[in-house]
Amino acid sequence: MAKGNRITLYDLQLANGITTSPFVWGIRYALAHKGFDVDLVPGGFTGILDRTGGRTERLPAIVDDGKWVLDSWLIAEYLDETYPDRPALIPHACMTPLAKGLDNWFFSTGARVWIKALAVQYRARAHEADHEYITQTRERMWGGKLEDLIIGREKRLAEVLPQLQPLRNVLAESAWLGGDSPNYADYRILSVFLTMSSLADIPILTDDDPLRDWVERGLDLFDGLGRDPRLSPLFGFKPQPGDPEPFLKGGAIGGPAKRNTGPQSTAEETAHITGKPAPAPR
Amino acid sequence: MAKGNRITLYDLQLANGITTSPFVWGIRYALAHKGFDVDLVPGGFTGILDRTGGRTERLPAIVDDGKWVLDSWLIAEYLDETYPDRPALIPHACMTPLAKGLDNWFFSTGARVWIKALAVQYRARAHEADHEYITQTRERMWGGKLEDLIIGREKRLAEVLPQLQPLRNVLAESAWLGGDSPNYADYRILSVFLTMSSLADIPILTDDDPLRDWVERGLDLFDGLGRDPRLSPLFGFKPQPGDPEPFLKGGAIGGPAKRNTGPQSTAEETAHITGKPAPAPR
Repeated sequence: MAKGNRITLYDLQLANGITTSPFVWGIRYALAHKGFDVDLVPGGFTGILDRTGGRTERLPAIVDDGKWVLDSWLIAEYLDETYPDRPALIPHACMTPLAKGLDNWFFSTGARVWIKALAVQYRARAHEADHEYITQTRERMWGGKLEDLIIGREKRLAEVLPQLQPLRNVLAESAWLGGDSPNYADYRILSVFLTMSSLADIPILTDDDPLRDWVERGLDLFDGLGRDPRLSPLFGFKPQPGDPEPFLKGGAIGGPAKRNTGPQSTAEETAHITGKPAPAPR
Repeated sequence: MAKGNRITLYDLQLANGITTSPFVWGIRYALAHKGFDVDLVPGGFTGILDRTGGRTERLPAIVDDGKWVLDSWLIAEYLDETYPDRPALIPHACMTPLAKGLDNWFFSTGARVWIKALAVQYRARAHEADHEYITQTRERMWGGKLEDLIIGREKRLAEVLPQLQPLRNVLAESAWLGGDSPNYADYRILSVFLTMSSLADIPILTDDDPLRDWVERGLDLFDGLGRDPRLSPLFGFKPQPGDPEPFLKGGAIGGPAKRNTGPQSTAEETAHITGKPAPAPR
C-alpha cells in the first residue's frame, strides 16, 4: 500500500492550478496529516467522469497503489482504517456524526452565503472550459444570474459573521476542534475557508475576528499548506454602519459556552441579567 | 462513592415540579445513562445560592457521597472519570469540542427563538416566588416585555425549522448523534427539546418533521424519562402559507450531507443541478 509513501489525489482546480473544492482541500490536509506525499492529478469541473475512467462525477478521489477510494468522508475513514499506525484523522467513531453536524451547519450558514457572494469569481477564475458548466449549474443551484447574486453582497457577508459565534465559543475553550491537536474536524471547516480564499475578491472575515487565530494556525499546518500565493486574503472585511456586531466582544458570558465553577464564575452573567453590579443570589 | 448507587441532583423546576433547565435535563439523562438512582432536590430559580450553601448560583449541581460537582459539562466529565467502568457519556475526548459546537449552534438557532416564543409560559408555569426574578432577568436578556416577545411567534417558529436541517442531515445517516447508541451529545440537544416541552403552549415542530423519530426515541430512553405527563406536546406545529418549507422533502441531495459511491450515487444531484434528467459527465 501507498508505494513510495505516495497517494494519488484527483484535484478540482481553478485555471491557476489552485485547489478550489472544500472536499478536496479536506483530503489534501488529511493526506498531509497521515504523512503521505501526494501526486495531484490536475483538472477542473468538467470531464471528471472521463478523467477518472467513469468511476466518479465528483471529487476528491484517491488512488492508493491501484485502489480507488471516493468521497471525502469515506477517504478519511479509509485512511484511518488502512493506516492505523499513523496519526488518526478521526480518533474515535463518536466524532463522526458530530463533525458532520458541524460541517453541515457551517456549509449552510457560512459557505452557502460566501460562495454566492463570490459567484462571479467562481466562474472567472475557473478554467475557460468550465465557464459554461459553472454558469448553467450554479445559476440553477443558486437561483439567479451570477452577476446578480453578488449585488449587495457586503450586507449578506456582514450578516454571516455573528452566526459564526458557536465556532468562536468552542475555539475560545479549545485550541483546535480536535482538542489539543487538529484532526479531520478542523480540516473540514478550514477547507471551506480555503475554498473562499481561492476565490475571494473581497475578504469575508474582519481583521479582528477571534476565529483568526485558529484559521491562521490552520493555514500554517504542514509547512504552510494553506499559504499558497494563489490564495486571496480572507481577513479585512469592513462592516458598515447598520451592520450587526460581527462577534461578541469579550466572548460569550453565559449559556452553554461557559463553565460554572462557583458563584465567582457566574458573577458577570448575573450582573448582566439582573442589572445589579454585585452578584445576587438567584 | 455513590453510596447505595444514589447521587443527589439539585433540580431547577417549574411550579408543577417538572425539570425545566436544559442543563439539568442533560444531567438527568447522564445519570440514567451511567445507571445511577437520583435523589432530586426540588426548587425553582430563586434561592439557589442559599439552597446549595453558597456553592453555586446556577444548576445543575450534584453531590456524590459528599462531593459537590457543578456545571453540566464538568459533571458529565466527572461521571466518566470517576466511573470509567460504566457506559461512557463521552467515549473519547475528541467528542467534546464538537458536541459543544453543535450545542452552541442549537442554542443560538433553536433554543433562543423557542424560549422567547414561550416567554409568558416560562413565567406563568414557574413557582410564584420566581415570577419577579424571571420578569426582571429575562426581559433584560431578551430585550422586551414577556407579553410582547410572544407576539407574532408563529412566524418565528416557522423560520427556525429549515435551519435545523444540519441536524436532520446527520440523523439521516446515523441513528444517534453518538452513532449506534446515544451518548451525551444526544442528551444535550434532546434536553433543549425537553425544556421547551416543559413550557410549550404551542408545539414547535411539525408532525412530519424527520427529527421526530430521533426525538421520540430519546424521550423513550431510560423507561421513558422524557414521557412525564407534566410535559406538553412538541409536535403539531402548522406552518402557514408564506412560511418557508420546514424541512427538505426527501432529504439533502448533495453537498456535505451525501456520500459519493460512484456516478449512480450522484445522478440525482447531477440531474438537479444540470436540469437534464439523465446523469451527465461533468
